[in-house]
Amino acid sequence: MSGSSFGKLFKITTFGESHGKGVGVIIDGVTPGILISESDIQHQLDRRKPGQSSITTQRKESDKIHILSGVFEGKTTGTPMGLILYNEDQISSDYNSIKDLFRPGHADYTYLQKYGVRDHRGSGRASGRETSARVAAGAVAMKILETKGVNITAYTIKAAGISCVRRDLQVIEQNDMRACDSKAAIAMKKRVIALADEGDSAGGIVECIVTGVNPGIGEPVFDKIDAELAKAMVSLGAVKAIEFGSGFACADMKGSEHNDGMDRNGFKTNNAGGIIGGITTGEDIIFRIAVKPTSSISKKQTTINIDGKERSIKTEGRHDPCICPRIIPVVEAMTALVLVDMYKREAALLS
Amino acid sequence: MSGSSFGKLFKITTFGESHGKGVGVIIDGVTPGILISESDIQHQLDRRKPGQSSITTQRKESDKIHILSGVFEGKTTGTPMGLILYNEDQISSDYNSIKDLFRPGHADYTYLQKYGVRDHRGSGRASGRETSARVAAGAVAMKILETKGVNITAYTIKAAGISCVRRDLQVIEQNDMRACDSKAAIAMKKRVIALADEGDSAGGIVECIVTGVNPGIGEPVFDKIDAELAKAMVSLGAVKAIEFGSGFACADMKGSEHNDGMDRNGFKTNNAGGIIGGITTGEDIIFRIAVKPTSSISKKQTTINIDGKERSIKTEGRHDPCICPRIIPVVEAMTALVLVDMYKREAALLS
Amino acid sequence: MSGSSFGKLFKITTFGESHGKGVGVIIDGVTPGILISESDIQHQLDRRKPGQSSITTQRKESDKIHILSGVFEGKTTGTPMGLILYNEDQISSDYNSIKDLFRPGHADYTYLQKYGVRDHRGSGRASGRETSARVAAGAVAMKILETKGVNITAYTIKAAGISCVRRDLQVIEQNDMRACDSKAAIAMKKRVIALADEGDSAGGIVECIVTGVNPGIGEPVFDKIDAELAKAMVSLGAVKAIEFGSGFACADMKGSEHNDGMDRNGFKTNNAGGIIGGITTGEDIIFRIAVKPTSSISKKQTTINIDGKERSIKTEGRHDPCICPRIIPVVEAMTALVLVDMYKREAALLS
Amino acid sequence: MSGSSFGKLFKITTFGESHGKGVGVIIDGVTPGILISESDIQHQLDRRKPGQSSITTQRKESDKIHILSGVFEGKTTGTPMGLILYNEDQISSDYNSIKDLFRPGHADYTYLQKYGVRDHRGSGRASGRETSARVAAGAVAMKILETKGVNITAYTIKAAGISCVRRDLQVIEQNDMRACDSKAAIAMKKRVIALADEGDSAGGIVECIVTGVNPGIGEPVFDKIDAELAKAMVSLGAVKAIEFGSGFACADMKGSEHNDGMDRNGFKTNNAGGIIGGITTGEDIIFRIAVKPTSSISKKQTTINIDGKERSIKTEGRHDPCICPRIIPVVEAMTALVLVDMYKREAALLS
Repeated sequence: MSGSSFGKLFKITTFGESHGKGVGVIIDGVTPGILISESDIQHQLDRRKPGQSSITTQRKESDKIHILSGVFEGKTTGTPMGLILYNEDQISSDYNSIKDLFRPGHADYTYLQKYGVRDHRGSGRASGRETSARVAAGAVAMKILETKGVNITAYTIKAAGISCVRRDLQVIEQNDMRACDSKAAIAMKKRVIALADEGDSAGGIVECIVTGVNPGIGEPVFDKIDAELAKAMVSLGAVKAIEFGSGFACADMKGSEHNDGMDRNGFKTNNAGGIIGGITTGEDIIFRIAVKPTSSISKKQTTINIDGKERSIKTEGRHDPCICPRIIPVVEAMTALVLVDMYKREAALLS
Repeated sequence: MSGSSFGKLFKITTFGESHGKGVGVIIDGVTPGILISESDIQHQLDRRKPGQSSITTQRKESDKIHILSGVFEGKTTGTPMGLILYNEDQISSDYNSIKDLFRPGHADYTYLQKYGVRDHRGSGRASGRETSARVAAGAVAMKILETKGVNITAYTIKAAGISCVRRDLQVIEQNDMRACDSKAAIAMKKRVIALADEGDSAGGIVECIVTGVNPGIGEPVFDKIDAELAKAMVSLGAVKAIEFGSGFACADMKGSEHNDGMDRNGFKTNNAGGIIGGITTGEDIIFRIAVKPTSSISKKQTTINIDGKERSIKTEGRHDPCICPRIIPVVEAMTALVLVDMYKREAALLS
Repeated sequence: MSGSSFGKLFKITTFGESHGKGVGVIIDGVTPGILISESDIQHQLDRRKPGQSSITTQRKESDKIHILSGVFEGKTTGTPMGLILYNEDQISSDYNSIKDLFRPGHADYTYLQKYGVRDHRGSGRASGRETSARVAAGAVAMKILETKGVNITAYTIKAAGISCVRRDLQVIEQNDMRACDSKAAIAMKKRVIALADEGDSAGGIVECIVTGVNPGIGEPVFDKIDAELAKAMVSLGAVKAIEFGSGFACADMKGSEHNDGMDRNGFKTNNAGGIIGGITTGEDIIFRIAVKPTSSISKKQTTINIDGKERSIKTEGRHDPCICPRIIPVVEAMTALVLVDMYKREAALLS
Repeated sequence: MSGSSFGKLFKITTFGESHGKGVGVIIDGVTPGILISESDIQHQLDRRKPGQSSITTQRKESDKIHILSGVFEGKTTGTPMGLILYNEDQISSDYNSIKDLFRPGHADYTYLQKYGVRDHRGSGRASGRETSARVAAGAVAMKILETKGVNITAYTIKAAGISCVRRDLQVIEQNDMRACDSKAAIAMKKRVIALADEGDSAGGIVECIVTGVNPGIGEPVFDKIDAELAKAMVSLGAVKAIEFGSGFACADMKGSEHNDGMDRNGFKTNNAGGIIGGITTGEDIIFRIAVKPTSSISKKQTTINIDGKERSIKTEGRHDPCICPRIIPVVEAMTALVLVDMYKREAALLS
């Protein structure tokens, strides 16, 4: 039980390490008859892939998707889709010098504790590369959501200490930070580059908004739709926190302020973030996640080796100085996976 | 698939509504040979039950636990434990006047949208009473964790806008707020009572700390231990947010600040909150949740009825003006359930 | 993971031992809005309960069902149904003399090997009484299948070496053997009573036929509908074998004989037993199970005690000399559970 | 939920069609530190691959296995193993003439009913080729079982109406029928060839014996080890029946004959087939399955097309006239998968 499956009815199972032969995913439970092509999936992968801008890692992965099964004559058949991305630009020798060291912020120490063995090349299974399989699967989920009128958009609202002051969803794909405020985006980028130049990295906050979801979607009790989204987001290695709607601010609110009253036009406010009792209200689903600063930095840090001896370490190599821009398609993908699963659970319950 | 099971190897399945015959839980996967009695479970339920203080609801539920199976001669047999609490102090007629109204902040509207039918008495399945089954199951999980030296403690760190300035775990059970600062607790209580007198309610923040967990526990990828804890916590109706370790503060940190370096004594800091890559580091697990202000308030609010007509509503009855004190045993229970499950997954993987 | 749940979307979880406080079941995933009453469920339990005839055990269990949740104003709400039967006629002292002996044919030895502890009273969790929870849950499944026009009928076709020569489904509930041939039923009963008088017991074969199932129901690969039915049936302690359609006879057939050809009216034969590739053809689903002779017999047998010493044993008490009549409602219940689950999976896939 | 995963703790998920790009499997839950190479897996695939003898299909698939992940420096890392076999010798045009016809005995009709679309080339997902992924995964399971001293052997005991009279496990891999009786094997082969020459095919019975399993392995109630094995076997498209130990013969036995008594040396007989109450006794696990005659025959058969018009059909192409020899490694693989899963569940329960 190594946690490589996600979803109950639209279920994905992934494999792959950053320096193995590739990463892949099997999607089981795909609605038959959905039009899909490799380019639909490639589009999302291109948004996640390295080398897009000066503030993303300069590794050269083409991240080309191959559909191995489950599609016939351009349509899903309802049988499992096997998707694979072969690894290309691996420089495993980069990691030889640090194979016995535990890189701060990385899962090196915890993996060795858990498994007793460890593929030290590029974080192995714990690499961010694992998320490319999620994005590929999410692209299929998005094709299904399209048929339901559901739309998912994530964007940076804070990075390197700089916050967006506007929410302009039109500009997201036009700036390297994928921020919702063009002006803030410029300041963010400048600060991120400055940090990178110091051999350091920056954290941030990403917000996600989902429109077009019917009321009544989601499950009660343990599998609440917000609970599943929380699991989905915190399952991303860089995410340290999640909040829905009012989030942590609710702690300082009174019930009379927080409760979303209704009138003939529906809900008057959306402190709930579109979900009450684990079930959608029909309002936009809104949540925010905290993205930690990239662990791989070239600044000197202190650590120990596998024998417990103190050592200093610099994580050389090609790394993103801020994860926000590239985590955004992953956040959208995970959101899409949760939503399709929930729509299918609803169909099952009612039938 | 209505989401009433939690856990994979130590799996609980619950049933029950606030105004039905009772609530109960089946625990499957219980380690055989564990000494357990009804009083072990009752102790935890008593911490959650109504009527403990002037700032908890005055409903009178004895919340007496009955073990129906799975224990023989004082020890678990490894077969499923059936546990039940019969309902007692139900005044269903309290709800007649509002049965066609959607109470703000409650799941009335979303349940009706989902199911098409609704048990309107006391929130039905969406009632906080559902969590008593979680507490009962969690008490069994805690008995198993005791054998591993794991200890879980949750406490209020903020309520009604007032924050604790100290972390004194000794005082938690000695004040009605279950806060970790006696002085702050007095101020919190005063403010909560003032809000209650206005017919209003207060939110807060609860922190949970887990000590004694081995390094190497947890799963990679989707079932990361923090992901499972996030799901567990957000599956509580009142929880709007969760953060681990540095949490949202990580957004403003640099990698060189956030990374937890190591020396011969282990980790030098714990920004990770005891978990990296979804697997425990051996440091304390630390997380915080945001608890929304109680939805049921006697202040007049605006809403609609099932025909879409605008109405005003006052939620009379006996409600907690702040959920923090009574959610604490629930938070501990859910944490225990996740941990036992994770320990068992580790045993399965290695065997 | 002690195996007490069955089904994925219409999921039941059971608890209870023969000499504990009762047996019960939680059904999660119930379609909302289904009319159901305790008497619908009681009717099926009455078909399974002891003491129906001279060839069933004379224990007196009223097997009265209690619906604890999930039903409001006579209709299912879509939230989990908690059902319980309290134990009544337990004479645990019957078992004191054999508590250290392994009864031949019973799970005494294997349970002790697995768990290290054992509730020796009346087989504990391994008791046939566990199946009453299945029957209760199956009754709910049948109410859902009714709305789809699906009908399930099981009956004895062989017992104590005597076979039915006719398939007259009208007579099943009119004879104590629940056989499909009145004449054979008389001979069977006579022979079963003769065996009982010798302190012995009889095996048999039960057939089950399902009509009204749509073509296209079931899953490919591992979760084939026949695979799930096979699991469901072999999960009954007394069942040693199952065959679908032609069954073991297919081993002696040629492809040209076995293949079910089609003409404009559909399939010309039904060697497939209504299922091809794990998916229903629309023809009747037909399968047969082998029911072993009751393990509890009063004839002297040889065994060992928990110290490995050889002992002789007579299983006194009140036992069915042939399990066939009482296993029939259980077979129907398990079939209903599989079918509802499969219908729901189909709805999920297509949505 | 399309049924492409099997197992709970040692879980495999498969994809692939006979005429797509390949078939593959992800194994999640692999014990870390197990020595494994592609040749370990290839060995089992070679036993299943086409073209081994004159009585297996002459298709030329090299069935070369590629390990894509989860193995580092010759050892499993505990992360998911991705395995793939690329398709090679596909002559899809063979199927053009029959793409609108429902081949008798095949899942053509049921797939179209279920999915509304269908990959008609070589049965698509319903092809026997799907089982090569099972064999690959099973080979990994066998490596784990080796460390526990468990051994699995399956063999033909009947084919084309001819039964083995001896059980000589030494000769199995020395005859093309994989029968346990050399003499019978010659007669079987002769009869199978004669049937093939007539454009027809033969059924048979395969027996499987597992030695070295500890007592106490398996789960009670729904997930009994025999229930899981029954599901595993009936999930093979050609299998119509399964029986354990005494099997259908138990129907004619008395309790005093069927019960396996014990003496100081253990069980005196093994009618139970090594499993009582769903848990292993420590005796050999024994079961038999019925294998239907190959559906693809060149003899003329009657069927309909997708418009319901009556047509005649000859299934040309290269097919096995008897499935027994090639299903044997699949039976062993599925048995290995169930056993590893059960061992892991036991470890989880006890921890």
